[in-house]
Amino acid sequence: MRVREDSGAVAVDGVAEKPLERMGLTVVALGGNALLKKGERGTAAEQRANLASTFRKIAPLLREGELVLTHGNGPQVGNELLRQELGAAEAPPLPLYLAVAQTQAEIGALIAAELPPVAGREAVVLLTRVVVDADDPAFENPTKPVGPFYDEAKARELEHERGWTLTEDAGRGWRRVVPSPKPLEILELESVRSLLQGGSIVVAAGGGGIPVVRRDGRVDGVDAVIDKDLASAVLAAGLGAEHLLILTQVPAVLRDFERGEGEPIPELRPGRDEAILDGLPAGSMRPKVEAAFQFVLATGGKATITSADALGDAEAGTTIVPASAP
Amino acid sequence: MRVREDSGAVAVDGVAEKPLERMGLTVVALGGNALLKKGERGTAAEQRANLASTFRKIAPLLREGELVLTHGNGPQVGNELLRQELGAAEAPPLPLYLAVAQTQAEIGALIAAELPPVAGREAVVLLTRVVVDADDPAFENPTKPVGPFYDEAKARELEHERGWTLTEDAGRGWRRVVPSPKPLEILELESVRSLLQGGSIVVAAGGGGIPVVRRDGRVDGVDAVIDKDLASAVLAAGLGAEHLLILTQVPAVLRDFERGEGEPIPELRPGRDEAILDGLPAGSMRPKVEAAFQFVLATGGKATITSADALGDAEAGTTIVPASAP
Repeated sequence: MRVREDSGAVAVDGVAEKPLERMGLTVVALGGNALLKKGERGTAAEQRANLASTFRKIAPLLREGELVLTHGNGPQVGNELLRQELGAAEAPPLPLYLAVAQTQAEIGALIAAELPPVAGREAVVLLTRVVVDADDPAFENPTKPVGPFYDEAKARELEHERGWTLTEDAGRGWRRVVPSPKPLEILELESVRSLLQGGSIVVAAGGGGIPVVRRDGRVDGVDAVIDKDLASAVLAAGLGAEHLLILTQVPAVLRDFERGEGEPIPELRPGRDEAILDGLPAGSMRPKVEAAFQFVLATGGKATITSADALGDAEAGTTIVPASAP
Repeated sequence: MRVREDSGAVAVDGVAEKPLERMGLTVVALGGNALLKKGERGTAAEQRANLASTFRKIAPLLREGELVLTHGNGPQVGNELLRQELGAAEAPPLPLYLAVAQTQAEIGALIAAELPPVAGREAVVLLTRVVVDADDPAFENPTKPVGPFYDEAKARELEHERGWTLTEDAGRGWRRVVPSPKPLEILELESVRSLLQGGSIVVAAGGGGIPVVRRDGRVDGVDAVIDKDLASAVLAAGLGAEHLLILTQVPAVLRDFERGEGEPIPELRPGRDEAILDGLPAGSMRPKVEAAFQFVLATGGKATITSADALGDAEAGTTIVPASAP
């Protein structure tokens, strides 16, 4: 077992209990563009080509050290929901949480094919459930659009028959909205630890994880979606990771992103820079910075938000460090 | 670490290298009726109710000892292929091997919900790939029907456009047939071992596993399906399991099954009873007995073929033991 002594952590005896907290674990959250580019429809071939390209760009990171990979699933779960709806006359539609599960397997299998040739080691894919609070206010106020567009008559029918919430989406039609509750706990955390000890890259918490709630001594799936960066932060903190790396389309967090002004921010510190959050778009960069802040606050570790292209460039990227860092 | 000395195996020092081979591991292969009953369409609610009922019947088995669960996916992958076809105009169909992956997640998530309340411990679901030989003769002679029925014109179109093989199925229309190659190796074998050491029930090799071939230093998915009992035997042998338990609809293997004569067979021994195979139906009981024979020959362990209802009945079931057993 390798104990990193250059990590700033004090090396102690008796690390066997929780060895991962001292071993330089990195959690990498792959952005949507690692899987699909604008205008692509979501074929397996497209996803494989994009994954292979992303992995080649970040190859040095993949080749050594303990590594957990997470990923989004927006277009994939959208496609799956389309299939469920269009096939409904002949094959019963599955609940949303199972569609999320299906995308973990779809994308996981593609990653498991494309990663080893670049990384020189195996990737294992763990079905991952993420606990949310049944009383999370998001359940009262579903906001995340998923699946196909409908006309108003069909929307009313679905509200009536399935109890869905649908809202009109900027003239494009009616669309189902689902809750996006806060991730609290990764159920498979210890399993991820076990798999890491085997030396593989572990693919987990895909699509933000399968949302589940605890009730009556059970753990049941719920129809919701979880932000993948927030889930990645919970996973990374739970594992005691040293580094949370959030890969996205832009090389760094930009100041006043909403106003289109592009000054990149080299460093952010939670407890000092929360004001930046207001200027960031709610559906994209804001949860990434929030996730990075949460991880750094919970662990004292480091987070980075950058693109696969810029990863090797020490001048690029936004680094998030504790307020007390030197 | 618990070392079973009552298993007939000689206890030796230095078991740490491969501890599972001495720990009474059981691999349970769930039959299709554990998930869906005749006439059911495959909703999540149906599958959950059936799983809960099956788990209650076999509860004593689930509550202790090391346990790996495998399962079939016939109706589920059929439904997924229907969705892929009916949704094709709006969401690109995925290759069959990814549909198999999707069913591992669908069924795995349902098992992970229904198992812990009965077993009193967690279940973890591992995406599992199974290596087949690219030169397996099955690829030259696809025989396993999957997915929806088509009329002849559509069948010709699909043969032309997608390179599928379709055959007419007893007046019900044309149907795609795919290869069912022999499973050779479970890629995630060491990961299953790691997860078992964490104390969870491991759900693996669902639907016979995602079929992959090794070529050019890569491991790529192929459009095929693998018999889940044969895959379970390869998994059980690889793990050095003590017991392979194949659960099916009937309490025991019946002599002259094809002729409808129902004399149950209490014991079978590979190397002595191969002649029984000819009288068994190719698509259902024969691969179960073949799987049991392969496992017993490879490991010297024991296999059982029975139903969930009959599991507690010491008089029921067919036990498969080595030819040299007392």
